[in-house]
Amino acid sequence: MRKGFTIWLTGISGSGKSTIGAGVRDALKQRGRSVELLDSGRIRKQINRSLGFSREEIEAHTMRLGYECNLLNRNGVIAIVAAVSPYRDVRDRLREYIDDFVEVYCRCAMEVLLARDDKGLFERAKRGEIQHVAGINAPYEEPISPETLLNTDQQGKEECVYKVVATLEVLGRIERVESACYSAEEEAMIRRRLHDLGYL
Amino acid sequence: MRKGFTIWLTGISGSGKSTIGAGVRDALKQRGRSVELLDSGRIRKQINRSLGFSREEIEAHTMRLGYECNLLNRNGVIAIVAAVSPYRDVRDRLREYIDDFVEVYCRCAMEVLLARDDKGLFERAKRGEIQHVAGINAPYEEPISPETLLNTDQQGKEECVYKVVATLEVLGRIERVESACYSAEEEAMIRRRLHDLGYL
Repeated sequence: MRKGFTIWLTGISGSGKSTIGAGVRDALKQRGRSVELLDSGRIRKQINRSLGFSREEIEAHTMRLGYECNLLNRNGVIAIVAAVSPYRDVRDRLREYIDDFVEVYCRCAMEVLLARDDKGLFERAKRGEIQHVAGINAPYEEPISPETLLNTDQQGKEECVYKVVATLEVLGRIERVESACYSAEEEAMIRRRLHDLGYL
Repeated sequence: MRKGFTIWLTGISGSGKSTIGAGVRDALKQRGRSVELLDSGRIRKQINRSLGFSREEIEAHTMRLGYECNLLNRNGVIAIVAAVSPYRDVRDRLREYIDDFVEVYCRCAMEVLLARDDKGLFERAKRGEIQHVAGINAPYEEPISPETLLNTDQQGKEECVYKVVATLEVLGRIERVESACYSAEEEAMIRRRLHDLGYL
């Protein structure tokens, strides 16, 4: 059985976590791996409606997601989590708690999020109609040293997906595939970054 | 990959769910299966402290356990849950929600539980010092047609474990092993019961 690990996508609502998570899931499935995508928003709606968005409740929800990652990982399944997970110390707890944790920060400039705002989420938050929207009326603490930093306002979905996959290859979490869609130069950049952060 | 399924142990605190769950886990692991035991009490203590014991909170916690069972099952892992899960309609929802659900009722006479009461739980509940103790100051709705009924006040741990394993064999959830520790007579009884309940 190949070892499982966890890819944790963090970022403000609308920054592309679920989309990129689904893309990474499909790419890893194509490589024959067992993968589960845990979408925080969907889980809250479907089976965890009782938990709100206070700091304590966010922490409880996040650690429960981490628990599920461990369950999957130790049975050979790669877990991909898409969750705002706004608190740095909670993410640091996750890194301790989960055996093999790869943090991916989906960064998107607030101007772009506000201009896009497909669901009207930010507009309603600004008008005070909804609370607990990270980046507007609730904190979002940026990761300091995520394994992968994606500028989702500048990079397309495919580019982001392959950057994550390339990072996993360089980290040795998945086997190297020659036909991968990234250049030697990109790989060298990823390698340098991971080395500088102490992950290599 | 062999198919996963879920064994759900329900019963009042002290009825032997965790002990029997651990025994069944070990027996199935010995047969080379991937198994996870989800102990409701331990999960509540370790990673779900924020959820209380109102009906809604019990339901949310239970359905989340069910969600985890599905995650494991579809990746070939057998999930065993030890949870009081006192509400019949919530267990019925689980049976709908989980693809392959085997209900095991750990029944223990209240006199025996009260006489034993290792943790002083029932005594404290009777004195009103703690709330939400199923069978004392909170409801416990017995299953009507569980796949396995264990009288844990009369049967020892080993007997209970093998009754569950034998049921799984008769239901075709696991392969038959000739050296099993139950008699042809016992198997016939299990088969008759499952047939009468409509599970065979």
